[in-house]
This record gives sequence, structure tokens and C-alpha cells, in this order.
Amino acid sequence: MSQPADTAFPPFPGGKQPRTERGRRSLRKLLDAAALEFGEKGFHEASISGITSRAGMALGSFYTYFDSKDSLFRALVSDLSARVGTEARERLDPAQDALGAERAAFSAFLDFAREHQEIYRIIDEAEFVDPASFRQHYESAAQRINERLKTGMKKGEFRPDLDEAHGWAIMGMNVFLGLKYAIWSEGRTTDDIASVAQSILKGGIVKP
Amino acid sequence: MSQPADTAFPPFPGGKQPRTERGRRSLRKLLDAAALEFGEKGFHEASISGITSRAGMALGSFYTYFDSKDSLFRALVSDLSARVGTEARERLDPAQDALGAERAAFSAFLDFAREHQEIYRIIDEAEFVDPASFRQHYESAAQRINERLKTGMKKGEFRPDLDEAHGWAIMGMNVFLGLKYAIWSEGRTTDDIASVAQSILKGGIVKP
Repeated sequence: MSQPADTAFPPFPGGKQPRTERGRRSLRKLLDAAALEFGEKGFHEASISGITSRAGMALGSFYTYFDSKDSLFRALVSDLSARVGTEARERLDPAQDALGAERAAFSAFLDFAREHQEIYRIIDEAEFVDPASFRQHYESAAQRINERLKTGMKKGEFRPDLDEAHGWAIMGMNVFLGLKYAIWSEGRTTDDIASVAQSILKGGIVKP
Repeated sequence: MSQPADTAFPPFPGGKQPRTERGRRSLRKLLDAAALEFGEKGFHEASISGITSRAGMALGSFYTYFDSKDSLFRALVSDLSARVGTEARERLDPAQDALGAERAAFSAFLDFAREHQEIYRIIDEAEFVDPASFRQHYESAAQRINERLKTGMKKGEFRPDLDEAHGWAIMGMNVFLGLKYAIWSEGRTTDDIASVAQSILKGGIVKP
């Protein structure tokens, strides 16, 4: 599920945009290696040389793209945020109803988390390493959900009184189901867990 | 909303149970001071002398209860977990229906988080400082929700097919609504946010 090298990168605070295809490939390698290094060692123990070594790159090439370990970390959080968004968007289909769109987006997130187990630790550590990135990650994820809720309301499929807080509630449900069933235990399938979330979104938990 | 000094403390790994009322008061003071110190400075910058100074106690009295900053941190996470559970239990009432019990428990959590803003940072930092405490905090919170769900199913008020994952979904909803509306922004009341969660639990988000 790795992102194609020619995908545009989000703007990196303190990072430099590559201008060539080769540059984009190198940046992608650095970000992937950083995800493994930060995920395994945590921010403080992670090192730039550990990251370039994982990426199979010379230490000096790091500085073509980033000023510091901090700026790489910020870029990585921003990259992971964007990739979660991209994964969800790729599963959306105009033929889906609004509830189906929530299922597709959540399934994409679960699959991404299963394949990139390090995402939880990295995002969670951002709360301490770079609080603005942490907040931005969740604000932007909530915004994506809220845009889908608005679409569902416009189509008359969702209740007309949904507001921003409903999006945050759905995001929290998704994040914790992911933590429990994609990271801490793997005994239940994506489909099964997506069905639990869907059943709550569809009819709540009260006996009909 | 401070806990009465005579409340039993949860067993502390590495901590020593006080045997007298005076000892319990001192331990309570230490834990409250630790919550402020860890919440404000984070685990690594926090110091034992900063904590005893906040508590108005001599540095030496710290070691009557704890071996180290680590053992105090573990005790604090365990204490916060227990207090969240106690706050919820105190609002439960046999006259409530099962949905009302969820509202009461979530409102108690929101109020607790508003009054103890440091709880999020401390629990979140536990993922890095003491991962077992972090996991235990959420496993036990999910268990409390799942016990209430079982009660609601037995009473025939909740759908009979709810399982553990539904409890994790509800917990995630509550945690993220708390993060957004008790910690990051305060413009909406506990009642208003509890109503959002209730509306999802009651009928989902689909137009009836």
C-alpha cells in the first residue's frame, strides 16, 4: 500500500519540496524509513543516521530535504495524515450511499493501520514532540468526516441535525476500534469491525 | 471534585499503602501535586522535589510512599483510572434506563476532564513512560462500559448483539468528544456534548 513516488507531498514545514522524480523517490524512502525508525525507537532514541541507513542513503542526502530530526518528524506526521486521507478517498465511490462511504473510509483506515502499525505511536508521540502537528492531524481528519456528513445530509440520507461534534464522535470510535483491533489484537477482520461501527451509525445501540 | 481522603486507593505497583488517615491524606496530596506537575511539565521534566514542593511536604516524605518518579507516575495513572470510574459510578442510579446510564457516565467523565485538564496529557504520556499502565487504563474503562452494555442487554433495552467492540467504539467516541470539547475548546456544555453522544447511541446518524 506504499504511496506511488510521483504523488504530490503535502507542504512540509522546514522541509524542501523535491523537484524531480528521483528526488520524490528519495523523499519517499526517507519518510518510510523515518516511520519505521520513529515507530520502533520513539522520537528521542531515533537518529538521523539510523533513518538514512534504513533508507539506504548517505547521511548527507538527509539535509537535501530536512533541516533537522524535528522537521522530518513534522513532515512525517503531515505525510501520514495525508496518506490516511488518500487511502479513504480512494475507496469512495459515487455509487455508495452516505453510510457506505463511512464504511469505506473506516475500512481504509483499519487496513492502513494494520499495514503501518507504527502510525499510532507516531501520531500519539506528536502530542509531546510537536503538539501543533498532533492537533492538526485530528482536526483535519475530523474535517474530512464532517465533509462526508454534510454530503450525506444534503442527499437526505443522514439526519439533518448532525454537527461538527458528530464527526469527532465518529473519529473517536474509529481511532479506538483501530487501536484495539488493528494494533493491540488482530483476531477480528476489518469487515467485522467495520460492521460494528456501521451498526452504531445506522441504528445506535438501543433495541429497535 | 477532589476525592475524600478516606477513599481506598487502588493497589500501587511499587507504592506503599498508607495505614492511617493522616497517611492517606498525605498520599492524596502527593498524587494531586503529581497530577499538576506531570500535567504541566511532562514526565521527563517533572521532578520529585517539584512534586513535594507543590504538595507542601518535605522531600523525604515522598519515599514513605514511592520508590521513584516512575512508581509515582504508575500510581497516578492507576489513581486517575480509578477516579474516572468512581465519578461515573456515583452518577449511576437504579432509576436510570440503560441509555441514561451511558449519559450519566459520559457526563461524569466530561466534567472530570474539564476540572482535571491534565488527565489527557498524563494518560497519553503513559503510552511512552509506562505502556502497561496506558493499556490497563483503556482496557479497564472499556470493561466498565461493557458491563453496562451487558446490563442494558439483560434488561432488554439494548440490542442483544452488542459485543466488546461496541464498548470500545463508545469509549473512543467519549474520549475524542472530551478531547475536543473539554480540553481543546470549551464553548459547548457537558449537556450539549452528552446529547450528541446520546443521539448516536440512540438512533445512529441515519435519517429515520
